[in-house]
Amino acid sequence: MFPFIRSDLAQFTAYKPHPSSDTAEPVTEQRDRLDTNESPYDLPPELKEKLVWTYQQVIETNRYPDGGHENLKEAIAEYVNESATISPSILTAANISVGNGSDELIRSLLIATCLGGEGAILVANPTFSMYGILAKTLGIPVVAVSRNAANFEIDLVAAQSAIEQTQNPPIRVVFVVHPNSPTANPLTASEVAWLRSLSEQILVVIDEAYFEFSQNTLVGELAQRPNWVILRTFSKAFRLAALRVGYSIAHPEAIAILEKVRLPYNLPSFSLAAALIALQNRQLLLNSIPQTLSERAKVIEALSHHPSLEVTESAANFIFLRLKLNNFHLQDAALKNLHQDLKNSGTLVREIGEGLRITIGTPNENTRTINRIQDVLANMNF
Amino acid sequence: MFPFIRSDLAQFTAYKPHPSSDTAEPVTEQRDRLDTNESPYDLPPELKEKLVWTYQQVIETNRYPDGGHENLKEAIAEYVNESATISPSILTAANISVGNGSDELIRSLLIATCLGGEGAILVANPTFSMYGILAKTLGIPVVAVSRNAANFEIDLVAAQSAIEQTQNPPIRVVFVVHPNSPTANPLTASEVAWLRSLSEQILVVIDEAYFEFSQNTLVGELAQRPNWVILRTFSKAFRLAALRVGYSIAHPEAIAILEKVRLPYNLPSFSLAAALIALQNRQLLLNSIPQTLSERAKVIEALSHHPSLEVTESAANFIFLRLKLNNFHLQDAALKNLHQDLKNSGTLVREIGEGLRITIGTPNENTRTINRIQDVLANMNF
Repeated sequence: MFPFIRSDLAQFTAYKPHPSSDTAEPVTEQRDRLDTNESPYDLPPELKEKLVWTYQQVIETNRYPDGGHENLKEAIAEYVNESATISPSILTAANISVGNGSDELIRSLLIATCLGGEGAILVANPTFSMYGILAKTLGIPVVAVSRNAANFEIDLVAAQSAIEQTQNPPIRVVFVVHPNSPTANPLTASEVAWLRSLSEQILVVIDEAYFEFSQNTLVGELAQRPNWVILRTFSKAFRLAALRVGYSIAHPEAIAILEKVRLPYNLPSFSLAAALIALQNRQLLLNSIPQTLSERAKVIEALSHHPSLEVTESAANFIFLRLKLNNFHLQDAALKNLHQDLKNSGTLVREIGEGLRITIGTPNENTRTINRIQDVLANMNF
Repeated sequence: MFPFIRSDLAQFTAYKPHPSSDTAEPVTEQRDRLDTNESPYDLPPELKEKLVWTYQQVIETNRYPDGGHENLKEAIAEYVNESATISPSILTAANISVGNGSDELIRSLLIATCLGGEGAILVANPTFSMYGILAKTLGIPVVAVSRNAANFEIDLVAAQSAIEQTQNPPIRVVFVVHPNSPTANPLTASEVAWLRSLSEQILVVIDEAYFEFSQNTLVGELAQRPNWVILRTFSKAFRLAALRVGYSIAHPEAIAILEKVRLPYNLPSFSLAAALIALQNRQLLLNSIPQTLSERAKVIEALSHHPSLEVTESAANFIFLRLKLNNFHLQDAALKNLHQDLKNSGTLVREIGEGLRITIGTPNENTRTINRIQDVLANMNF
């Protein structure tokens, strides 16, 4: 290790790119890529066409992008107002900051709050791993509590105790996903009540990446909660994962800080144009959501009858699957086998939090998922 | 200010987007945008066409981008080997890391080295402002020395003294631009010798954003200098400013750190595809460089005859212009007037470092630049 590199980075492990997006392992067309919670559908041809038209007629490749994002922020505010059924509309562009995926927004929030030994963060595992990974890259301590093994509710007693007892530095940010990944459960009333009870010294980040599937948002509370930030993304329901656009919704003063901290030209012109076109055509894009929800019901129904499987409720575009084995020592090995055998048979899923997180894909993909899981389990004598 | 925000961010000023990329001030077609050192030319129609074909036939908008960048890194390594006339080729993909513009790479370098009170950075002003701005966002101290007023060489005595005397934290990174922005001068032999003399405890970042115009690179030294990192960009000669692609060239171990620190999906698929197409067609794109160099000579020649102007040599796609007035107190006001009057007459330039930085544009733009500067000065009675 070079002497000019921070010593604490040596033992640090980076986020591992998902197999399906890793060039080292080329994607074969036969594989069902159900490991990254993407939409199974590309933009419809007419929207790709519109975007191409914009690139050819409007975007000058040689010119820096719009560094202010004003048009996109206005369109996002309109969508958020509408989707939260807030009436009359109260959010404006001043409540929105746009990032290079939610990842950049998470990093900006960490930089703005916890750097230099000023704060630690709290997460409840299993949850989205980037909060902890980005915090550690920045030398920020991560305090982790667990979840109820049956319904995945955060251990609120442990969480409250962590808030009260963590010192030097204190917990300054709490990260939750609503619904959570990988466990697919929305925040419960007790969890929301606990978040409301937190001191205004603490920033609460509610990641609503899967909002379009849950239709359950806390946006309506932002007016009363200046210490809350809600994150959303264009990578899931809006089908723009390739183009990296996320956004945050918060009090204008918190947004002003995010705008200060972000890279000045953080979004390419093509991504800005795509997000705007996606919002302008949201009816068309969100039309596929009912199919995702009915397919999710189909998968859950089929798998929940299996005696060795435990499938919990889902409010997102993926399900979380665990093995019910009497011998806990076998469980971990069996899960790894199931994961690998599914991959060998052509279905990529994600092993995380002592279970498998499986994205809901096209109807054919989901049927294959069900059949392959049943086949693999039969071969394993479960 | 919220209690959860770092106290030192309050007085922090963000990078101001350039007027030409600011939506608040719409670009009129009449304006000559010579304030951001972009190429005046968009990609040729056949390359836009290729990129559009790739988007429509290959890129799935709904899928996360390639997080490994392997193809692009290989193509970059090949180009760098060729452009540095290193023979036989010695750099590989392992020497390259790709970022969301150089900005992301600068931030990653700062995060990897100086966070948590471990280091400060050294810059020589005037220079590219993002080093200092990004450092301050991260709470990293910035030590600044000045340059020789005649030829803009770094004050090496002051720089060496800053290295020796700065403690708690020590200087861990030195940033230089080669050629420098806004002053357009390449590193001198003395400056390079000083960089070579620095301890291996110090990371040396050499930003070669304008390499394609100077054809003067330090890449050949990297094999002997594991503590050097060279930055390059696709935003200038390669005409991809809208799509945000920069890269760093360094020892594989330093690259491994950058890869750890960066956001896992930091580049959209469209930007990755564009950079690859630009490299594959580099002859076509770099064909415009000789025109830029002869236009630069034309502008320098025309302006250097004016008794009130001082135009220095340039190794980049821009020139640096100062006013030669006997009364120093008038100088600042006159410069502001010149800047504003040029803007009013339709030419955007950048006022920085007690001078004007003016991008070389198309032949017509450059002729207008010359005429407008002469007209404005005549009106000011200079």
